[in-house]
Amino acid sequence: MALPNDYHNLWRWGNPENAVQLSQFPKLQLFLENRFGKKLNASSKTPSVKISSSRFTENELKVFFPKLKPNQISLEEYERLRYTFGKSYYDIIRIITSNNSFSPDFILFPETVEDVSYILKQAVANKIKIITYAGGSNVVGAFDTDMSFPVGVLNMQKLNRLIEIDSDSHTAIFEAGIFGPQLEKILNEKNFTLGHFPQSFEFSTLGGWLALRSAGQESGLYGKIEDIVVQMKVVTPSGIIEDVGFPRHACGPDFQRLFLGSEGTLGIIVQAKLRIHKKPESYFWKIALFKNFGSGSEALRELIQSGIHPAIARLSDVQETQLSTLIGHKEKRGLQKFVQSIMKSWLKSKGYHEPCILMMRFAARNESDYTAAKVAERIIKKYGAQKLPSSVASSWESTRFSLPYLRDTLVEHDVLIDTFETVSSWKNLLPLYHHIKNVLKLHNDYFGKGGLLLCHISHVYETGASLYFTMIAPQEKGKEIQQWQELKKIVSDAIIEKGGAISHHHGIGKDHQNWYLKQLNPETKKLLQAIKNHLDPSTTLNPGKLIDAQN
Amino acid sequence: MALPNDYHNLWRWGNPENAVQLSQFPKLQLFLENRFGKKLNASSKTPSVKISSSRFTENELKVFFPKLKPNQISLEEYERLRYTFGKSYYDIIRIITSNNSFSPDFILFPETVEDVSYILKQAVANKIKIITYAGGSNVVGAFDTDMSFPVGVLNMQKLNRLIEIDSDSHTAIFEAGIFGPQLEKILNEKNFTLGHFPQSFEFSTLGGWLALRSAGQESGLYGKIEDIVVQMKVVTPSGIIEDVGFPRHACGPDFQRLFLGSEGTLGIIVQAKLRIHKKPESYFWKIALFKNFGSGSEALRELIQSGIHPAIARLSDVQETQLSTLIGHKEKRGLQKFVQSIMKSWLKSKGYHEPCILMMRFAARNESDYTAAKVAERIIKKYGAQKLPSSVASSWESTRFSLPYLRDTLVEHDVLIDTFETVSSWKNLLPLYHHIKNVLKLHNDYFGKGGLLLCHISHVYETGASLYFTMIAPQEKGKEIQQWQELKKIVSDAIIEKGGAISHHHGIGKDHQNWYLKQLNPETKKLLQAIKNHLDPSTTLNPGKLIDAQN
Repeated sequence: MALPNDYHNLWRWGNPENAVQLSQFPKLQLFLENRFGKKLNASSKTPSVKISSSRFTENELKVFFPKLKPNQISLEEYERLRYTFGKSYYDIIRIITSNNSFSPDFILFPETVEDVSYILKQAVANKIKIITYAGGSNVVGAFDTDMSFPVGVLNMQKLNRLIEIDSDSHTAIFEAGIFGPQLEKILNEKNFTLGHFPQSFEFSTLGGWLALRSAGQESGLYGKIEDIVVQMKVVTPSGIIEDVGFPRHACGPDFQRLFLGSEGTLGIIVQAKLRIHKKPESYFWKIALFKNFGSGSEALRELIQSGIHPAIARLSDVQETQLSTLIGHKEKRGLQKFVQSIMKSWLKSKGYHEPCILMMRFAARNESDYTAAKVAERIIKKYGAQKLPSSVASSWESTRFSLPYLRDTLVEHDVLIDTFETVSSWKNLLPLYHHIKNVLKLHNDYFGKGGLLLCHISHVYETGASLYFTMIAPQEKGKEIQQWQELKKIVSDAIIEKGGAISHHHGIGKDHQNWYLKQLNPETKKLLQAIKNHLDPSTTLNPGKLIDAQN
Repeated sequence: MALPNDYHNLWRWGNPENAVQLSQFPKLQLFLENRFGKKLNASSKTPSVKISSSRFTENELKVFFPKLKPNQISLEEYERLRYTFGKSYYDIIRIITSNNSFSPDFILFPETVEDVSYILKQAVANKIKIITYAGGSNVVGAFDTDMSFPVGVLNMQKLNRLIEIDSDSHTAIFEAGIFGPQLEKILNEKNFTLGHFPQSFEFSTLGGWLALRSAGQESGLYGKIEDIVVQMKVVTPSGIIEDVGFPRHACGPDFQRLFLGSEGTLGIIVQAKLRIHKKPESYFWKIALFKNFGSGSEALRELIQSGIHPAIARLSDVQETQLSTLIGHKEKRGLQKFVQSIMKSWLKSKGYHEPCILMMRFAARNESDYTAAKVAERIIKKYGAQKLPSSVASSWESTRFSLPYLRDTLVEHDVLIDTFETVSSWKNLLPLYHHIKNVLKLHNDYFGKGGLLLCHISHVYETGASLYFTMIAPQEKGKEIQQWQELKKIVSDAIIEKGGAISHHHGIGKDHQNWYLKQLNPETKKLLQAIKNHLDPSTTLNPGKLIDAQN
């Protein structure tokens, strides 16, 4: 089908009102045009996709799910199309190049935990597979499934209620379909925060965060979602699993971890109890420029290993630092102004040939946070960093959740832009960083062909840190999919060759499955299979994912 | 058999050289004699135990385990007796009252991971059950098993090597049979610490900590063992499970948590990678006296929820505070001196009718720790606490690991002394505390019969805290076992009735199994059974524990 006029909503990021045009970023456009050696023009191609017919009629679905209300079931073609793709570069180019994809046969909208149980029961009885849909913001091919069997998608967004806030114990129970802003607003009204702000925050849900082990930008203070969750209620085909959720205990093995990262293959997370925190009175930034990525990385390591926990700690490599000066909407502000005015002369004279910016945001809960920030300043100074004014951070803050919109317009200008992320021990972190750059050079002449690779460290732990990469390259017209697949294979191979995790917070989906399976211990795989066999003996849940490799 | 002369080692705590006599605690003795209304005399009974013969001969064992060296197998009677009991009050009274117990048929001493795999393989082939023995310090009936089948005990203590220290990533890999002091010494030599100091520290091993989810006295800073472990290698009858152990990741479900708290029923933990920390330059104490347990508990809650993390935070209720003034070895020191001199007059005049002591120890890593301590002081002042000199802590520090020795001499003077612990949310913590006291009053006239109940909070989390109770009561001669079983049932019923965990850090063993099973969600139980069926299909590992209830 040719896409309807508002096909925008189908593949673009977020809210159409916030969409941006490349022309709003003249410096970036000029930079890329110079680097790629060609003009960047908006693509004139009209996307279209083929959509398979549903295997079912409305009446058949009523027979399968007699207790559901009519508005809880949808067969509508465009609705089904919405659940065919995620929000990754690979998803977009499949749409733009009219690449065939499989669409689910119907969509279900449960409103209660009982609805979810009922739907699973009927799905098992009628041999229908169920894919759980949270916010729809995934970027790892979560919906890329060979749907050679009847498939219904479970849209969880109506399960979006607050169940309980316990202000004494600093916990709150929410239903899993609630979106980030709604959840945070409820907590803010009681002066609490969850502190979980992934870049997808506005368009992702609690259940999605849990099922894919997401990380928020303030993970330094609040932890990753697996540090935040206290207890979950999970509906499986074999029954409902819900543990007591003590703060800590010595009462046998913990089963909740099995569902974190299970990506809809073991059960459907319907509720979760979460740690919440008093909303800090204020925040403050500490910004610094390092002479190179290595010294910045060492400073971050010493910082976290000294017990200093900035809520945000984000160290960009030289490429990302330089590109970040080009993407501010407004001129002469913050980092742009600073870097433009003095970088090229003063910095180089001081040895900042590869300037790398570190942005740290501290929560000001009490005076010990200010002392911690002073210790942080001392440590980064020791590693030769130059302090920058905190106004530099305003650019990042204003674009905190909006970079995916820039991605969209770049893709429409025939630019390949994709991200990937990993995590490893501190000892292995820089070797891994350099290895990835090297393989791109060796196996693809990526940089020679104009490709850019940006990287930052944005989640630091005592034992290691994550690396978050952005690839920007000229799209190879007519070979868009092949180009992406080649690059994805090169960097993913490089990650696991050099001891990085195939994902730190995006998840596995279809895009990372091959490498996930290579990293999985064979006995662990058998154990996961045994657990799957027990919880979902009819393999109703999310076929083709994690250990169920279809190819 | 009558016990040999050194039966001391069989049931008493720790190192015989550190044993104490009740006469060294004249104030305590006088206090208890007054309270119990009788003299405390050393028991004249000669303990003896019956030990079942081994089902096997040395030659038969050679056939079962042809690859093991002679010194890796023991059938010796006294050796087998050592593995019959743990170190709980219930264990002791079973020995003292010559209560029958089952002993294992033989002991095996693996020296390598390969030995462990080999032993499991041969055990499965020869239909022998395997109980894993770590430090032997357990207090929840870990060895209380109906051994109506051939049983070998696996003593893990020869697997006690350091495998690797990664100073950059602050991790270390040790074999699981290493004892606390040996592990800590290796780390201290490189200026690191693990920071895990359970009261059993000197006589417990890494593997035991992991298999029973132990908590150390400095959990406030370093976390419970499940927060410390990064990765484990586990030998199961179906194979070796070992995940990659990234700092954090989004690569599917985490299976390591299944083995934490598995108490030897799912596999044998042979190695673990642990988070380590730079040894703090120094420590400092902040001590305060609260007017009652409630205000102290509220202060602790605000403290931890404000992001202040003392390494040790221990709040004693009024009973424990008062008793602690009686057990120092030396006169006129620290707390004793202070409390003796002014408590009765000055404190009461200020409203401290139920004085409760809070001891906090901070690690001084950098100046932010001092600021945090100042914030802590402000918070506790807000809750009406009186600051005490830090010298008060010296008494606690000097007896940090030695209270079990006092327990031993009290038992030999016909005193019942046992501990139990739980954990719950902050909201439920004081109601749980009062409920336990109430049921002891209602169902047993415990206090009317002279019983004492002491309690402290010693592990605090943002969402809740643990309660650690000590029962001290006159032993009912001739009914020692029945008396303990009655009390254990009353307090355990009370804990789960009121939403506490049946254990915070001691584990389940035989003593807590009934209540563990009552708290376990039925679907979780089925899931654990499915995992057990997969990993240990011949039920070779630790029969009768966790979900395998024999009664």
